[in-house]
Amino acid sequence: MRDYERYDLGDLKLQSGQTLHGASLAFKTYGELDAARANVIVFPTHYRGTHEDNEWLIGPGKALDTDRYFVVCPNLFGNGLSSSPSNTSGAQGRGGFPNVTVYDNVAAQHRLLRERFDVTRIVLAVGFSMGAQQAYHWAVRYPELVERIVPFCGSARTAAHNVVFLDGVKAALTADPVFAGGWYETPPTIGLHAAGQVWAGWGRSQTFYREERWREQGYASREEFVREAYLESFAAADANDLLAMLWTWQHADVSDDPRFGGDLARALGSVTARALVMPSATDLYFPPEDSVLEVRHLPQAELCQIPSVWGHGAGGNANAVDAAFIDRQIARWLAT
Amino acid sequence: MRDYERYDLGDLKLQSGQTLHGASLAFKTYGELDAARANVIVFPTHYRGTHEDNEWLIGPGKALDTDRYFVVCPNLFGNGLSSSPSNTSGAQGRGGFPNVTVYDNVAAQHRLLRERFDVTRIVLAVGFSMGAQQAYHWAVRYPELVERIVPFCGSARTAAHNVVFLDGVKAALTADPVFAGGWYETPPTIGLHAAGQVWAGWGRSQTFYREERWREQGYASREEFVREAYLESFAAADANDLLAMLWTWQHADVSDDPRFGGDLARALGSVTARALVMPSATDLYFPPEDSVLEVRHLPQAELCQIPSVWGHGAGGNANAVDAAFIDRQIARWLAT
Repeated sequence: MRDYERYDLGDLKLQSGQTLHGASLAFKTYGELDAARANVIVFPTHYRGTHEDNEWLIGPGKALDTDRYFVVCPNLFGNGLSSSPSNTSGAQGRGGFPNVTVYDNVAAQHRLLRERFDVTRIVLAVGFSMGAQQAYHWAVRYPELVERIVPFCGSARTAAHNVVFLDGVKAALTADPVFAGGWYETPPTIGLHAAGQVWAGWGRSQTFYREERWREQGYASREEFVREAYLESFAAADANDLLAMLWTWQHADVSDDPRFGGDLARALGSVTARALVMPSATDLYFPPEDSVLEVRHLPQAELCQIPSVWGHGAGGNANAVDAAFIDRQIARWLAT
Repeated sequence: MRDYERYDLGDLKLQSGQTLHGASLAFKTYGELDAARANVIVFPTHYRGTHEDNEWLIGPGKALDTDRYFVVCPNLFGNGLSSSPSNTSGAQGRGGFPNVTVYDNVAAQHRLLRERFDVTRIVLAVGFSMGAQQAYHWAVRYPELVERIVPFCGSARTAAHNVVFLDGVKAALTADPVFAGGWYETPPTIGLHAAGQVWAGWGRSQTFYREERWREQGYASREEFVREAYLESFAAADANDLLAMLWTWQHADVSDDPRFGGDLARALGSVTARALVMPSATDLYFPPEDSVLEVRHLPQAELCQIPSVWGHGAGGNANAVDAAFIDRQIARWLAT
């Protein structure tokens, strides 16, 4: 039995001009919506994650306190729960899934919050990685609604190096001819393993591997860590889903809007939400420098680096110290 | 007409216990050996490089001044000029090439210098990347000969993260079934492109891409840079050669010697050469932290970081500023 709900969007016009037919968002809510419909926190999911992977931050006594807040976790298009290549039938399924942007995701989430819950304000938009990208897009697109954002281990626009890193992952996956342009009959396991192997170098820092911090996650060897956390984890995913989300990630850009015409400074300058921006000190694909540069354009922002050697994993609940740090900082930001 | 010489090693006993039959070193010398046979600089090659890729540092008036020094550039096993999968016939060719360590390379180079040139001392062992690894191995294995080393953008032992990064490159290449375990009839071009695409993210820093520094190398776009500098460059190489050198790199370890039994501190502590260690500030696979940790164990060493945003490329003559910095520092070290 599924533990989440579904919101039907019908035929969804995309930023590209294409239409995603019979689109739907999978989502889960936590806590109760108050009478003013004004205690809402939106917490979108990250690459290869679902709402379940957000739950470490949600609950009574946690920053996203369900005794006070109504937390909505919409699933990213392409993650296998919301509309995705793997759950769409017909010509738009599998290798035929259209390109979906972060703005497409956020617009759909906005419909969910307005049409289904009639929310009047959003106390906080928060997210990790691609979730952080969605939080930024929320703030730029719906300034009248969003009071605060806490994007961690993510950026408002995907940096060039980040695109190149992802191109490498994509090349590794699609080097396996079983992939067949997305029209595979059996999973391209060799390509999925290769993609996971490539990611293993990017997902954690040099220091993480040097200090064998995988021991803290209960692995007996580096090889076991890489195999279970990356190779097998990627092989368990649908290749088209991975590539759909990867396209979304590569094209994340808050300034890709007629109001801003690609001007990132102007797009970020329009944000009225108070932003707490938290890069991981050792993130290899959302490096802290990207956040430093973006924060300069945000009118009301604080940069708060996660002091971690876990690389990007610092934001993914990979260890208790970083998880506690993030929880504490979000709680502090909500108290302002 | 080839511009280099060849030294036949006969049947070469390898560190693994295997024998490489009919082994030979390709090398080139620059300048004149003096009467005392004591003005020698050894400058081994790097991954995917040949002696020609070293020549930017060699010549009259340069640090490796051919008016004063006799510079010997031995080519790395697997680089296509010295014994390699691509130029070895029979069972040891192609997918059957044995595993060769950095110590195997250095031992063969030592034979060249002793047997062919009867050198009595080595003023300097210097190298970039895998060339730096060879310089370290020279200092540990032949302390009686080596007076100075200048390893730049490299390490004495390949770090765990570096191994993981290279595993990703290997996985991308071999995801192409045309590779066929090394027994391909036509080049595995898709796999080679994928390997190059993965490398593109690692070879330059995040800042290099953000600041579009590829313009300084004459490229019109990031896409053109990645295609020409990585995809086409990898596709022009032999896949087995790339993987043979990759194995050597992954297993580089000065402490892999019965005298040290894997104790890196002891191996480095035995070095009598004066070492100038130059990491690039933004190197993603030989990060400066690795050099900081290794320098602590060297009895007479100076750490001198290359202040560059070019990542690993800082050491590869990718731009004039870093090239001049390296030349100047080597000249300084030779003057001590």
